[in-house]
Amino acid sequence: MTIPTTPPSGFRDSMPDQVAARSRAVETITRVYRSFGFQPVATPAVEDLAVLLGQGGGENEKLIFKIMKRGEALERAAAEKVELADLGLRFDLTLPLARWYSKHGSQLPHPFKAFHLGPVWRAERAQKGRYREFTQCDVDIIGSDSWGAEAEVIAAILAVFSAFGLDGVKVHLNDRRLVDAALTEAGVPEEKRGAVCVSVDKLDKIGRDAVITELAACVGETVTQALIKTLLAESAPAADPLDKIIASVKALVPDSSLQVDPSLMRGMGYYTGPVFEFRHPSLSGSLGGGGRYDKLTAKFGGPATPACGGSIGFERLMLILEELGKAGDPAVPDAIVTVFSDELRGRSLETGAALRAKGLAVDVYPGTGKLKAQFKYADQKKAGYAIVIGPDEAAKGVMQVKTMATGEEQALTLDEACAKIAARN
Amino acid sequence: MTIPTTPPSGFRDSMPDQVAARSRAVETITRVYRSFGFQPVATPAVEDLAVLLGQGGGENEKLIFKIMKRGEALERAAAEKVELADLGLRFDLTLPLARWYSKHGSQLPHPFKAFHLGPVWRAERAQKGRYREFTQCDVDIIGSDSWGAEAEVIAAILAVFSAFGLDGVKVHLNDRRLVDAALTEAGVPEEKRGAVCVSVDKLDKIGRDAVITELAACVGETVTQALIKTLLAESAPAADPLDKIIASVKALVPDSSLQVDPSLMRGMGYYTGPVFEFRHPSLSGSLGGGGRYDKLTAKFGGPATPACGGSIGFERLMLILEELGKAGDPAVPDAIVTVFSDELRGRSLETGAALRAKGLAVDVYPGTGKLKAQFKYADQKKAGYAIVIGPDEAAKGVMQVKTMATGEEQALTLDEACAKIAARN
Repeated sequence: MTIPTTPPSGFRDSMPDQVAARSRAVETITRVYRSFGFQPVATPAVEDLAVLLGQGGGENEKLIFKIMKRGEALERAAAEKVELADLGLRFDLTLPLARWYSKHGSQLPHPFKAFHLGPVWRAERAQKGRYREFTQCDVDIIGSDSWGAEAEVIAAILAVFSAFGLDGVKVHLNDRRLVDAALTEAGVPEEKRGAVCVSVDKLDKIGRDAVITELAACVGETVTQALIKTLLAESAPAADPLDKIIASVKALVPDSSLQVDPSLMRGMGYYTGPVFEFRHPSLSGSLGGGGRYDKLTAKFGGPATPACGGSIGFERLMLILEELGKAGDPAVPDAIVTVFSDELRGRSLETGAALRAKGLAVDVYPGTGKLKAQFKYADQKKAGYAIVIGPDEAAKGVMQVKTMATGEEQALTLDEACAKIAARN
Repeated sequence: MTIPTTPPSGFRDSMPDQVAARSRAVETITRVYRSFGFQPVATPAVEDLAVLLGQGGGENEKLIFKIMKRGEALERAAAEKVELADLGLRFDLTLPLARWYSKHGSQLPHPFKAFHLGPVWRAERAQKGRYREFTQCDVDIIGSDSWGAEAEVIAAILAVFSAFGLDGVKVHLNDRRLVDAALTEAGVPEEKRGAVCVSVDKLDKIGRDAVITELAACVGETVTQALIKTLLAESAPAADPLDKIIASVKALVPDSSLQVDPSLMRGMGYYTGPVFEFRHPSLSGSLGGGGRYDKLTAKFGGPATPACGGSIGFERLMLILEELGKAGDPAVPDAIVTVFSDELRGRSLETGAALRAKGLAVDVYPGTGKLKAQFKYADQKKAGYAIVIGPDEAAKGVMQVKTMATGEEQALTLDEACAKIAARN
């Protein structure tokens, strides 16, 4: 059997600079969410299938990676020809949060402001830029029916974009109840509402004319004409509560741009009120979005706790930050300590430890070999300095400090070397 | 169908203080690993089953959570009665790293110092303190056959424990080649070597007498007597390269405690040389461990790159830190801004934004309701201050700042409030 060295289709390996940039971005997002009083929550990657299925996750339910039963349970299921899977990988963070809150809500401040970061998995058809494992960064306010909750969720997410120096983000807003009213008014039959929403949702991707053609084929010419005046209108005045949300976010974030977009759908079936989406001119599709989902906790047997939340599409954010050169510089070691010989390795290890104790990031060459290869290693790791301790230096209690950029070398004591390296930072 | 609100068996939800403590711990570990020149690596949660199986993962291979094929591939597999799963959740980080390095090694510094943090999954029998999803924090040096690599890996992991103020960690070391020699010398037949190692590995759990009984039943009295003098010896002198590793770590970390432990096995079949384990008096079992695995990359079709690495058992580390009160204090908001009425919510939101702009962590009450409930919310979130802006305050351009600990209230301007709140930090 040939063992693949590439990850499974739709999954990714990350290189060191990418991992470092992602960690820094997670730290920034965490800091901003915290500054708004959101508290961190974590749920497992794996949920019971009963939690993931039939909860309003819409199309995403079809994309669940299912985990097979194990041991006797698997044998029994095979013999009885029943479902062979009992668990699944989560496909979003909202359903797990609703489950988590249903279990732990009584121990929490009320209302509860949560943030929830982590990977989710969807068995999408693999294609460029679409991954089967991707990170979401959610903020949610559970237990508040106030429009102030939407305003804060949107403001917190805008503050994240702003913390990255990302300008030009536009917020599109709509309200599920307006969509329902438009569908009713146009006379769309119950069984065709889903299909109509899916078509309208494709406006960005396939364009207005193609959407109108799809609608006409689905619900006929007359109904389509009615929908053109409502769901497909270019814009709409903001009615309560969207007007309050917009005014409030504008007061909080003076340079923010918000508009009512009657065609905005957001896919998830669990939304019940305002929905919103963040867009950036350099990106087709959205940078994130969210909405109000007042009934989701009721599916777990408890009361219908009002809730709203939003999510940042982390992969898309990283893509834009990289393109705009805003992903930050990779961390590099301050110095590489070379190893002159196996006998002198101890001296190099001790020197590394001594410099590290002074707060420097110092990498001792981990192999054996010629100094030339070790200098190449220092180059590859983009270190500022390379340090050599040969028999002469060891005898004199000094080290040769080579400045990688210029090639200049100086014999220095530990304290002198430390001062020189630290001065560069 | 009743929908469970508890996670699947063996999986865990985390509460905000736990998540915050875990994030801080990850940041500390990252900082220490980086200071040694290790670079971050990330691989997907999901790997092809071909990668996970037959790679020397030993017992852990039986514990893989397998993911079912999807769509047509599943139907075809069911019809043809072949394996229904094609993917699995990773059960450690070493195998994925070996795959990753086999693919990307040519683009990396040589030798390569990696650190790799993330969750792994094992379908263990659920029991107290044993989880099916847990985090590992690995450091590895790939491409070096020097004992200096082991010394650095052990020193880096000890530096992590030290960064948490965790004293009293002991390092146990052994060498797979010494184990092999002892098995050969005692005359253990090839097919019983695995069973003997599994028995000896239980020394800590079941005690010396029980191990001897198991060995006698397995290989007979004579062979067992020979093993008692080698694998079950209380200690042993350190032969090359363990002596060099021990001397080197002791030079790097003067107060470190290292000892050769002839019975130390470490489970993974992929180890080829020195193995080591970190133990703490307050914990049965280990805090982490590792070893040299010089042949693992060869399984992916490339050359056998020498490698060694170690892993911190993150869940056990968090457990000890909590028990010792070293997990750190949870972050709390500096102030809660209450909302007097829906009309005045805008003022509260703006005040929150203004304080946040001064670098404070400020939480605006996300609901509507009586001030009493909002003060309770401030209490629950352990905020230092609660701020009230009623009609009078709004008219005068001030805010009432209530010190939560004393109940004292003061009418202050924004700048005064900011100075007062910041002074407490």
